[in-house]
Parts: sequence; C-alpha cells; structure tokens
Amino acid sequence: MIDVPTLVEQARQGRPRAVARLISLVENAAPELREVMAALAPHTGHAYTVGLTGSPGVGKSTSTSALVSAYRRLGKRVGVLAVDPSSPFSGGALLGDRVRMQDHATDPEVFIRSMATRGHLGGLSWAAPQALRVLDAAGCDVILVETVGVGQSEVEIAAQADTTVVLLAPGMGDGIQAAKAGILEIGDLFVVNKADRDGADATARELNHMLGLGEARGAGDWRPPIVKTVAARGEGVDEVVEALEKHRAWLDEHGELAVRRARRAAEEIEAIALAALRARIGDLHGDRQLAALAERVVAGELDPYGAADRLVAGLTTL
Amino acid sequence: MIDVPTLVEQARQGRPRAVARLISLVENAAPELREVMAALAPHTGHAYTVGLTGSPGVGKSTSTSALVSAYRRLGKRVGVLAVDPSSPFSGGALLGDRVRMQDHATDPEVFIRSMATRGHLGGLSWAAPQALRVLDAAGCDVILVETVGVGQSEVEIAAQADTTVVLLAPGMGDGIQAAKAGILEIGDLFVVNKADRDGADATARELNHMLGLGEARGAGDWRPPIVKTVAARGEGVDEVVEALEKHRAWLDEHGELAVRRARRAAEEIEAIALAALRARIGDLHGDRQLAALAERVVAGELDPYGAADRLVAGLTTL
Repeated sequence: MIDVPTLVEQARQGRPRAVARLISLVENAAPELREVMAALAPHTGHAYTVGLTGSPGVGKSTSTSALVSAYRRLGKRVGVLAVDPSSPFSGGALLGDRVRMQDHATDPEVFIRSMATRGHLGGLSWAAPQALRVLDAAGCDVILVETVGVGQSEVEIAAQADTTVVLLAPGMGDGIQAAKAGILEIGDLFVVNKADRDGADATARELNHMLGLGEARGAGDWRPPIVKTVAARGEGVDEVVEALEKHRAWLDEHGELAVRRARRAAEEIEAIALAALRARIGDLHGDRQLAALAERVVAGELDPYGAADRLVAGLTTL
Repeated sequence: MIDVPTLVEQARQGRPRAVARLISLVENAAPELREVMAALAPHTGHAYTVGLTGSPGVGKSTSTSALVSAYRRLGKRVGVLAVDPSSPFSGGALLGDRVRMQDHATDPEVFIRSMATRGHLGGLSWAAPQALRVLDAAGCDVILVETVGVGQSEVEIAAQADTTVVLLAPGMGDGIQAAKAGILEIGDLFVVNKADRDGADATARELNHMLGLGEARGAGDWRPPIVKTVAARGEGVDEVVEALEKHRAWLDEHGELAVRRARRAAEEIEAIALAALRARIGDLHGDRQLAALAERVVAGELDPYGAADRLVAGLTTL
C-alpha cells in the first residue's frame, strides 16, 4: 500500500527518494497515478522546462551537465529527466552515457532521473509531462528534459517543453540531418557544441542559412539564436543560459508561455480521455464484441467503419 | 462528385485507373472512404498478403520485383504496395528506387502502388489495410507490402500481413540491427539477399543462432526458415515462393490465418472507433471546453485525470 499524501509531501520538501519513487510510479503507470497527479496539481506551474535534443555524439549529456552547473551557480534547484522512448518490441532502455551527471549526484538541489517510456499507448503523451509534474512540485526552478536519439518520439518529447534546444556538432552533416528529422521547426535555440573542432563555423553558417529559408517572421517573432559551445570545458554555457532566459522572457511577454502550456495540457487531457474510452471499449463490451465484429469484417460481411460505428454506439448510449 | 459504386465495380474488373483512384482516396483520407470500404467489403478476403521489411540496401525493391515475376509465372494476379510512413514534420515521401518495378509496368495482371501514409492519427493502422482491401477486391491473389526503411512504423506495417518476410544482406551487421529493431520477432521467413557476396553464410549462421536464442518452440510451432537469394539474378526466388506457400499452408492448418486476420481487423476497428470518439470530443464539446480544462490544469486547479473525466463524462451522457 503506497501512502500517496506522505510521498507527495516528502517530494515537496525535496526529498530525493520520494521524488524518485513518484517518478517510478509514473514510469510503471501505477494505479496510484491518478491520486498522485491530483495531489501534485496545486503545487505545479513553477518550473521552467527546457527540452534538449540532437543526434548521438553531439554531446547532449555533457551539455546537460554543464547547464546544470550553470543554473546551480545561479542558485537554482534543477531537475534532469533523461527520456528514452525505447522500442515497443525489446522493451529495453538504451540510456546514453550518464557518467557526466555524476558530478551532480551528491548535490541535494539537483534531481536526476532516467526514464524509459516504453511503447504503451499514451506513453509519450503521458509519461514525460507527468514526471515533469513531480519535479515541478519538488520545487525545481528549471527542468532539463534530455532525449536519447533524434527519432520522431524523441523530437516530440523535446518539443513538449517551454523552450526547446537543438544541439548539433561540426562535421556530422547535422544540418541536413536536422532538416530531415524535422527538428529545425522545433528549435527555439540552437547550440553548436564541440565548437573547438574544425567546421563549427560552417555548421553554424549552414544552420543559419537553413533557418533563414523558413517562412518570413514578423517583427515580434522569435528568431532562434545559434550559440557555440565547448560543453566539456564549460565554454559558451553561460551564453546558452542567457539565451534561454531571453526566450523565457519573450514567451512571457507574448503570452506564449501560457499558450504552450495550455496546448500541452490539452494534449495530455485528450490522451488520457482517449485511453479511458479505449479501456471502456475493452471493459464494457468485452473483447468478445470486438472479436465478433472483427470476424464479420474478415468475412466481408461488415466494413471496418460499420463495425466501429457499432462499438461507439454501444459505448455512448450506456 | 465521386461515383463510388462505379469506381468499385471498375476496380473489381481489374481496371488499373480505378484501383489507383481508390488507393488515392485512402491515401488522402477522403470523405468517401466510408462508402468505398462498405462497397469493397463483400469482395475482400481472397488475397494472401506478404509484408517485406529490411534495412536500406538489402535489395527490398529488387526482391519484391523478383517475387512479382515468380508469382506471375504461376499465373497469379499480384499487387504491390510500397508504403512510406514519412515524417509528420516534413510531410514528404522519400520513396526508394522503384525503377526495378518498371519491368512489370505494362503487365495488366500486376498492380503497383507507392503510398505515403503521412503522420495523421490512425494513419498507420488505417491506410495500409485499407489499400490492401482495394487490391484484394481488385482480384489480386497475392499482395506484397514493401516498406521503406526499418523504423518502428515500417515494422508495424510489415507485421500487418499474413506472412512477414525480413530481408538481410551480408556484411551490414544486419543481425544485430535486426535484433535492435525488433524485427526478429516479426519474421515468418528470413531472406539473406546478395548471397553471392562474402559473408552470406556468416549472416545466415548468425541469424540462425539468434533465432535459436528465442523461446523454445513446440512441436507444431512454425520455425522461420532462412532462404538465400540473389534477387537481381532471380536466384533463390522460387525457393522464397515455396517457403511462403508453406507458411501459408501452416497458417491455414493451424487456424492462424483466421486469427491473424481477425486481430488485424480488430485493431483497425478500434483505431477507427477511437478516431471517431476523438472527433466527437472535438466536435461536440468544441475546442472551448478542452481549452478551458487545459487552462485549469495549467493553473493547478485540476489534474489531467480529473479533466479527462469531465471530457469523457460529457461525451458518454450525450
């Protein structure tokens, strides 16, 4: 039996084990989640969330760690969520090198958590925002959401933040890769890491060019800045923080922060509602009705739309 | 105004333009789809569907073309559906080299179609099975579903067939790639193409070893065979057809064909029902209610589960 009110109270006090436990409940989609979310709700809305994405090898983990240090110097409480939307087949988590993060392992003002969101329905839409709520309620001022890889799922998670940072590195043909993966569109801020290597300027130029190719921006529009860093030596990291703060101020001024958060919340609500309806289809009608309808479709007696109509009709007249 | 009954009748007669037009309706999620599917239903269930997947460079397109030739020699009417679940961001289709397919372009007993399923909800679950229904009703005996790439979406599409073929080629580290992408689990038949190259035996051995690592099989269980081919020269292709026919017979004998088809139909019905419910959430409640709930969640007045409850309650009592 999990004592949710106590756990939430301890998490609010910033006790790491309670925070970790609550995120595990999220990760495992525990039945207590509903109670947890209700208890957390009044204590959320404070944290500023930053999504980080980029190809393997650009130095995401190192950059995240350097950002943690920079925010700690400003006296902020920092949360780090490393999300791995792993294959629905293997079920395994292939988390990247988290060694760098150990610099912060003993800092009581830093919460670091890796999370595998697996393949269950709504996993993407639920797990990350729910874990963010836990860290938010735990008093984090800033939460960095780092994703492993740059697949579609990773990009979606990184885009579920107040500000999204896209990392690149010289000589990886990243510009083209970024365009392919659709991450140019989601970047509020671009970081060219490993800027001490050959080709950093070329990467920045190429990126600048590609960003310029997008649709024309209005006077009040945000133009994503490009910052060069050598994260392993901490170079340029304060400039990244500065650019983040500028973007946050811009979001605030233009009412964009409220818009983005409301949009994320709406997506989350809709995903939960649909999952509830899906469960209801399964529970109330039993797999039998669906199976019977499926057999009639296979036999050509019924088309899938007609079958779906019957499922929905039964559901909404109950 | 689209004359659906006439179009369906022409497709049943095997007229290529009508078939192409119907698949375009599927691809564009046209409003007439419901009518199309209802008209097609009585004429479906005849075709045997084969999914083909594998990394770029293994010779999927060449193998598909060789299989078409082999089935044509047996006097079968053949459909080919090349599916590209493209990025939701770019919206573009990156279809592979379809040049080989032009060998069959003038054969009235072969229907070839490339389809981009884009990123819309239910696209994966709907588009491919619906296009299969069109080709099925058009009298195809065999339909080959070839996917571009080996991402999660591609694997899901390839697995939506009666028989799923996984292609590999020597010297690509494919064994490990296959295991990572989870395609070992979905393969009913493995083809090591480009078997005239160095390492073909090693690839087959590695694959055989990895398949052996899976759970123990019962006496009546299907053990996926491994066939070596040089598709570009047509070598081994008759053996692939033979293995496909064996698997089909096994599916029939064990009642697996009906089970697989019913499962696919159930997934399709559920996806359509959920999309209908989602549309109803949008239509009946208007974006306003969802937006109002989202704002309350952002403000911490309500948790996402509570908000979802209100959405669902409103929906099911209407």
